[in-house]
Order: sequence, then structure tokens, then C-alpha cells
Amino acid sequence: MLNKLEIDKLIPKCSEWLNGKGRNSDIIISSRTRLARNLKNTPFPNRADKRKLERVVELVKRAVSNSKILNGMKFLEINNVNELDKEFLVERHLISPFFAKLNKPGAIFISEGELSCIMINEEDHLRIQWIRSGLDINTAWDSIRVVDNELNSMLDFAFSDELGYLTACPSNTGNGLRVSFFCHLPGIVLTKNLDKFLEEIVPAGIAVRGFYGEGTDVQGNIFQVSNQVTLGITEKDTIERIKKVAKKFIQYEKESRNKLLKDAKIKIEDKVYRAKAIMKNAKIISSLEFMSLLSAIRLGVELKMLKKIDRKILNELMVTVQSAHIQKLAGKNLTPLERDILRAEIVKDKINF
Amino acid sequence: MLNKLEIDKLIPKCSEWLNGKGRNSDIIISSRTRLARNLKNTPFPNRADKRKLERVVELVKRAVSNSKILNGMKFLEINNVNELDKEFLVERHLISPFFAKLNKPGAIFISEGELSCIMINEEDHLRIQWIRSGLDINTAWDSIRVVDNELNSMLDFAFSDELGYLTACPSNTGNGLRVSFFCHLPGIVLTKNLDKFLEEIVPAGIAVRGFYGEGTDVQGNIFQVSNQVTLGITEKDTIERIKKVAKKFIQYEKESRNKLLKDAKIKIEDKVYRAKAIMKNAKIISSLEFMSLLSAIRLGVELKMLKKIDRKILNELMVTVQSAHIQKLAGKNLTPLERDILRAEIVKDKINF
Repeated sequence: MLNKLEIDKLIPKCSEWLNGKGRNSDIIISSRTRLARNLKNTPFPNRADKRKLERVVELVKRAVSNSKILNGMKFLEINNVNELDKEFLVERHLISPFFAKLNKPGAIFISEGELSCIMINEEDHLRIQWIRSGLDINTAWDSIRVVDNELNSMLDFAFSDELGYLTACPSNTGNGLRVSFFCHLPGIVLTKNLDKFLEEIVPAGIAVRGFYGEGTDVQGNIFQVSNQVTLGITEKDTIERIKKVAKKFIQYEKESRNKLLKDAKIKIEDKVYRAKAIMKNAKIISSLEFMSLLSAIRLGVELKMLKKIDRKILNELMVTVQSAHIQKLAGKNLTPLERDILRAEIVKDKINF
Repeated sequence: MLNKLEIDKLIPKCSEWLNGKGRNSDIIISSRTRLARNLKNTPFPNRADKRKLERVVELVKRAVSNSKILNGMKFLEINNVNELDKEFLVERHLISPFFAKLNKPGAIFISEGELSCIMINEEDHLRIQWIRSGLDINTAWDSIRVVDNELNSMLDFAFSDELGYLTACPSNTGNGLRVSFFCHLPGIVLTKNLDKFLEEIVPAGIAVRGFYGEGTDVQGNIFQVSNQVTLGITEKDTIERIKKVAKKFIQYEKESRNKLLKDAKIKIEDKVYRAKAIMKNAKIISSLEFMSLLSAIRLGVELKMLKKIDRKILNELMVTVQSAHIQKLAGKNLTPLERDILRAEIVKDKINF
């Protein structure tokens, strides 16, 4: 028995992967695994007609209902969701921007605490994701693997002995696994070593992107790092590669922060104190500026230039001051200026400097 | 008997024209008159040899000593002044940037309070200037006219019945009078009406420039407005024209500020509160950023968004946080970063928000 997801009930609490309690969460905000799966003998979503897409939703719905692990998930047909709510789900990283723009039968399943979710009829029939706070790729992988095995026993996944799991885009064919993490790299950026560093330690087949994934800009020195190759590589090898990269990022970021403290302390203090002063006093703050100020505040707290602020508060603000979140909070559509004004108020209210 | 000017003794006090007490000094910072004069039968400075230039200095020195009005002025030969001190004098508007770069016999005379000064062997043999706080072109003109008459009776000025006073550059030939004022126009700039306004009310022959005169950028919304035509126009007409322009500037600036309060109050509050927060918290402030912050603070005070701060303090900071002033205060040469750090400290110290 699946309960319907009520989007407004998500508002008071934030996704648990933003709680800042995981390992290395001074640098790694979260770890994520994602599997792409499709049903055998059914066209991929971009080729399937309405009836077939509805059938996919029904089949997965039944499987999830019967699942021992997933049956607590809440369910929502995406067609019934209005634009603002779709944007809200994108901001929470529960659906992709691509999925928000589709206008076809599709659905989402979301777990309590939003640590896991499944999109139905995005690019593939199933997109299953597991997110964890901090650097915790192992748990994210162990959890999703169990779910995959269970769903595999209930649904007939499209699989080729030669290629592995079949997917709409060849870039996911093979193991269908995308492993990624969000990290905050102000030290590497401020020491102007980002390009050199990316060239040096990011091997071919690893992509570095912004906070909202493919095609989004880097905001507030937050990067998303993920594998791009799924064919001819085992899940275990993918995970080991990403973990290795994550550890390098952590090491370089720590070294960079120490270097800044040693060589440019006053410049960092200037940046941090300005960000705090602006957050406390500005009447208008754009989303982009907020991300940049937040990066400085986060760095200031980690370097003990500012008093301790719970990482959970800072992480959650990244999501809760986004455009749709602010409008949901206001209970109405707002102009960009109205949003920027309300954002400034929320920030003042939430961060107790 | 002329006393020698000791530059270091200028440091503790600032020029009196910065005291913010003159008429309309919410918008017009100061008014200035300047006369260009040359000695008859002596080549202009760019054509005169060392001996002739020294002779000019001697002749003017004698005249000033014998003057009833000027004999309290302090005297300094410019060749003996080091680079930092020259920059210091430029920042105080006592000498021109052009004069600071010359390496020929020349001198300056400066009155108590720095309301008047005379450069010897700049572009012309004599450049006499009178500055007053606020909109007070009449007093600046009345004072300089008396001085001119007295010097005229002691020195033989180059004069042609056809052209008027002869000068090195034809743009000064005629009455040799430059009338100018500094004004602070944040309202006109923020309502984005500057270009339209300049086109509309600035007649041909009137120039609008930055805080340090010809060839300098506009900083902190401070503009210098002056006449450019000296030939075929009486002094009285020049003065009336500039006064008329000044009144238009005052009227438009007031209207613009009211418009901002009516249409964009929160944007102005945002600007003003940010500027205050940054001045109070930044560790590093460049000279250019300071001028921009100061403009917002000044506007905030005038619009009563901030508590009253004496205009004298704000005006003086425009000069005292400039590069050479900061280094004179520190008693040594500083790197640009060291200056920016000291500037941030001075600003925190001087403005009591």
C-alpha cells in the first residue's frame, strides 16, 4: 500500500543528506549512487506511447508496493504536479531538471527523509538514487544494490549478456551506475589551482559539474564529481575510482586551506567578514550571490574565523533559499526582486552569527 | 617674509574646503576659481630655461612677500619635494598631477587652511586657485579677483588688448579663469539618468570630469564640472554660466533622490546597509572601492537611512585614505595590499556608525 506524496509536507524538514553529519562533511557534502534500469520488451520512454508509459508506472508501482525495503516510499504522478512544485522537487535534488520538463506519464517514489528516490519514465524507465551525508559511497552503494536485487526479482530488466543493462543513452549502458559526490572546494578555487588540479587528478571518464548537475554553473565553489563510463567496468571498480578521486579532493582542499591560512590569512578574513556582514545587513540577496556568500561563511567556520554554525543549517540553506522553495514558503508566486528580498530575510533569520 | 611650508605639518588637519559647512554641501562639495597668469617678456614654462624659471620663482616670491593679502602663505620649492610628498600634495588638490611630474624649477604657495594656493611654473608661470566649501563661487571669485589685482600691480602680466591674458595653452587664453565645483551625484547615477542629464543641461564649453581633474576617472559618483572657454567671454558671464549649471545639478540630484526613495527605497537601503557593513567589517579596502562605499554612506546619511555623520568626516576621508596620505600616516612606503589593509583600519576608526 503506497501513500501519496504531499509536496507541501516536505517543506518544514529538509533532506537528511544535508545534515552535515557524515564523514569528511567539512569538504564532502554528500555521496550519491544512481542506477538506470529499463523494462524488457518495452520501448525506452522517449519512444514509448502514453499507454506504454502508464503501464511502466503501474508495473513499478506494484513492485514497490510489494517490496520489503521500499514499501514505505511515497508515490506521486508527475503529470499532476504544477510547475512551481516541479521546480521545488528539482531544487531538492529529488527529480532532474530534464524530468521536470517532460509532459508524459511518469512518477516518483520518495523515501522518508528523502535519502532515496526513484523516477519513473525519465530518460530510462527507472532511475533509482540513494544519497548519504558526507563521504559515504559504500553505504549508498550497499543500499542501492539490495534494492536493485529485489526489484530485479520482481521486474524484468532489459539486460544483454554482451552489453549489460540496456539504457536509452549509451552513456549509461553497462552497469547503469552513476556514483557522485558534492564537494565544497573554496581552498582550491581561492589558491587558483582548480584547473591545474582537475587536470592532474581527475582521470578520463570522471566529470566535474555544478550543484544542479549537467549543464549547470558552478555556484559557491560547490562541485559535483561523477563517473561517466558505465560500459566495460564493474560497479566495484567505478566505486573505487570515485572514492580515490574524493580522497584526493579532500587532501588537496585541506592543503589549500592551510596554504591560505599561511599565505593569505587577511584576504580570507576579509572575504569571510564581508560575507557575514552582508548576510546580516543586506536587504536584497540573489540566489547566485547567496551561494557565493555561503561558501565564504562555510570556509570561515571551518577555519574557525567565525564561531561554530551547524553545518546542517548551512547545507540546508543551499536548498531552502532557492527560488521555488522561497515561493512555497511565501505561499505564492514572487517576482525576482521579491524573492531576493525574502531570501535576505530568511538568511538573517536562519543564521545566528 | 615667507615661511617654508613643512609638508608633514599639513597631515593632522585637512583642507578647510572639505569641512562640509558651505551652502548646498549635501550635493556640492566645493567651489573653486583658478587664474592662469604669465609674466610679460618671459617664455612660458615649457620654453623657458632653468635660469628663467628660477627668475620667475624669485619674482613671484618677492611679490607674495610684499602682498598684504598673501604674505601669510607658506612657500615650497617643488624640486626639493620627494615623490611621495608630491603625490600627497596632488591628493590634497594643492598641486596638479602634471605639476608633480615636472622636474624643473617651480614652487608653491599655500595659505593657512589650504583654501588658496599658487603654483609657479606649472603650465603657466602662475596658477592661482581659491577653493571654498559648498556652493560658493561668488566668494571664491571675489577673493581671487582681489589677489589678481594686487599681483597685477606688482608683476607685469602678459596681456594682449586683442586676446586678453596670454597663456601657454590657448584654452586658457582670454580671461584665464577656470571656475569649477565638485558635486556628489549618486541619485542621478543610480536612476541611470546621467548621460541624458549631461546632454540636456551641460552646455557646450562646460566639461565634466572625475575627482582628480582632467583624465581621471569618476570615482564614488563625484564629478568635477568646469568651464572650458576663456576667450571672448567675461569673467562674470563664466561665473553665471557655471552657477546656473550648478543649480540645475542640485535640482536634478534632489529630484533623483526623491524618485529613488519613492520607487526603489529597498534597493537604496540594500546599497547603504551593505556599504556600512563592509566599512565596519572589511579587512582590505581599495581606494576605488572606498570611494564607492563612501558614496553610498553619504547618500544614506543624506536620506536619513543612517544616523547623522558629520559631512566633514566623510569629505576628509576622500582625501586622507588616498595612497600617499596613508603612507605618510604610516611613516613609510607601503605595498598596495598594506595600504588597503591600513585604509580599512582608518575607515573603521574614523567613521563612528
